[in-house]
Amino acid sequence: MSETKTIRTVGILGGGQLGRMLALAGARLGLASVVFCPDEASPAFDVAREAFIADYDDEQALADFAASVDVVTYEFENVPAATAAFLEARVPVRPGRLALETSQDRLTEKTFLSGLGIPTAPFRAVLDKAELAAALEEIGYPAILKTRRFGYDGKGQVKIRGPQDVDTAIEAMRGAPAILEGLVPFAREISVIAARGLDGTSITFDVPENEHRDHILKFSRVPADISEPTAAAARAIGAKVAEALDYVGVVAVELFVVEGADGETLVANEIAPRVHNSGHWTETACVISQFEAHMRAVAGLPLAAPTRHSDVVMENLIGDDVAAVPRILAEPGASLHLYGKSEVRAGRKMGHVNRITPRRV
Amino acid sequence: MSETKTIRTVGILGGGQLGRMLALAGARLGLASVVFCPDEASPAFDVAREAFIADYDDEQALADFAASVDVVTYEFENVPAATAAFLEARVPVRPGRLALETSQDRLTEKTFLSGLGIPTAPFRAVLDKAELAAALEEIGYPAILKTRRFGYDGKGQVKIRGPQDVDTAIEAMRGAPAILEGLVPFAREISVIAARGLDGTSITFDVPENEHRDHILKFSRVPADISEPTAAAARAIGAKVAEALDYVGVVAVELFVVEGADGETLVANEIAPRVHNSGHWTETACVISQFEAHMRAVAGLPLAAPTRHSDVVMENLIGDDVAAVPRILAEPGASLHLYGKSEVRAGRKMGHVNRITPRRV
Repeated sequence: MSETKTIRTVGILGGGQLGRMLALAGARLGLASVVFCPDEASPAFDVAREAFIADYDDEQALADFAASVDVVTYEFENVPAATAAFLEARVPVRPGRLALETSQDRLTEKTFLSGLGIPTAPFRAVLDKAELAAALEEIGYPAILKTRRFGYDGKGQVKIRGPQDVDTAIEAMRGAPAILEGLVPFAREISVIAARGLDGTSITFDVPENEHRDHILKFSRVPADISEPTAAAARAIGAKVAEALDYVGVVAVELFVVEGADGETLVANEIAPRVHNSGHWTETACVISQFEAHMRAVAGLPLAAPTRHSDVVMENLIGDDVAAVPRILAEPGASLHLYGKSEVRAGRKMGHVNRITPRRV
Repeated sequence: MSETKTIRTVGILGGGQLGRMLALAGARLGLASVVFCPDEASPAFDVAREAFIADYDDEQALADFAASVDVVTYEFENVPAATAAFLEARVPVRPGRLALETSQDRLTEKTFLSGLGIPTAPFRAVLDKAELAAALEEIGYPAILKTRRFGYDGKGQVKIRGPQDVDTAIEAMRGAPAILEGLVPFAREISVIAARGLDGTSITFDVPENEHRDHILKFSRVPADISEPTAAAARAIGAKVAEALDYVGVVAVELFVVEGADGETLVANEIAPRVHNSGHWTETACVISQFEAHMRAVAGLPLAAPTRHSDVVMENLIGDDVAAVPRILAEPGASLHLYGKSEVRAGRKMGHVNRITPRRV
């Protein structure tokens, strides 16, 4: 597509486990990574050629970072718009700003999905109590009030079961713009992980079925317990979203499976413009992981069919779950991945384990 | 076995592709790597927490290196004895000195193997032309004269087809102590990759069949075209060698398969006290790679059965072979690993590709 110089060094904004796994995957392609993160204890620093410890609005550090890399990517969707713009003026940023702008705001995101003809939960913008009352009038109970920005792992959202929850919900938004969403009566949660190359070619990984606990992903299972047409529909959504965002890299779309009289239908929940926790199983069960697919795309390299050789269950190790590590290490068929975080905290993602079994089909 | 503190940081002597792949595998276990290598362009530096660029006899650098890690391992067998001794006085070195001493000298190595009852080619020590003549008298033609130390990839060895080759051969040794070995009429070459933990438990990977070109490994295929008893005998040799060396980590033994009237027999060629090129396929076709097995052992973590989920062919990308990279990237079922070496040279190992297919048995 566009003329590009050979990419040897990739800059990664964000130094958590996703950045770390991107750097590891890049290394297998011969790429060096430079990681930018304000937190000096960032797990990704240990596997990077160079680390920038600075705030995302530190323009001198950002300029030096941009000068030291051939392309920039990121591991989290809340990259400040000003940071992305500053970097884009100096070096390609992939995926581009459209993906960040679309996914950073739940209202923009749902409007974007609806515009593509992809079903979502019913939603209304809510700025104050009066708007919330009007929105509840249309959507009904139960519903969920969410801040439009900066929510993850269930943070910044409140369930409204009936009128008695309205005051608490609006207070929890602390004056931030919000969105009211109808509750989707889903049978299961799945996601689609798509990758789109610089040349516009898309691939999608097999669809995992996801199980959350306390709003945090606990298990992803592949194959998911869904029909073949539903799996195909999920892949089509992934490819459509990637195409519409003129995306470069890996994008995940979380989906609800709703069982009705006419069979299964899909409802899109949210878009993550990055590698995704529900794709960690690809590391063990596929020839090419989501991390490698992302780094290939970002580096302008071709993608390839992400052949899955095994069935797999990914289990997140959260907080004290790491106590099971000695047992997991001795378990045949278990592939452990620890993120090198020294401090164990409740709710903190410490690692994951992929357990594979022979592919049934 | 011994009391050990929790290991978080592993020092690696040698910064080539093996050190790089060890560091990458360590990272997946949450371990940080510190790499010591005299070459400032070492591929492993890009994925290490810290790099020491210094000679192996630089005691100040070695002392600082030892102080910055919890354990030391190495990616090559020619670690100077003085370096190993200096480090051992400060920090555990795994595998230990016995493995280095045994494998650094072809005469010691073959004597060790024979002592374990493991067949080798007939061999005689050769210091000068008179001893060569006597050795040839016993072993006969054709035979191979090799320097006892510092040989790899066919370097430091000369084939003697008849009396006409004797002068050239002895001159090629440049006065270095040598060993004359009889030529083994092998049907195929295989290897066994064993790993032994700090607790004395051994595992062995499935046995690859190896094909060399110009004395450099080109392909490893798994499963090998050998009988089940031969595979079991190879594994037993791997475990026996590891046990006899009180080994901690991954050790490879190269073996010749000789076909006779009584079926297949095995002849040991050499021991590599490190991860081995003929084990690179484990990265894609097994749940635990040879690199992870080595890092687990070195860090005192338990080993587990290295389940192989797929059949696989590993191809080394040597020198100009990297021209095929764009094609390989687009190939379904191909897992590419590049070592991040910027300069392409004839005979230089630039990367490898593992091509997997469904497991037949």
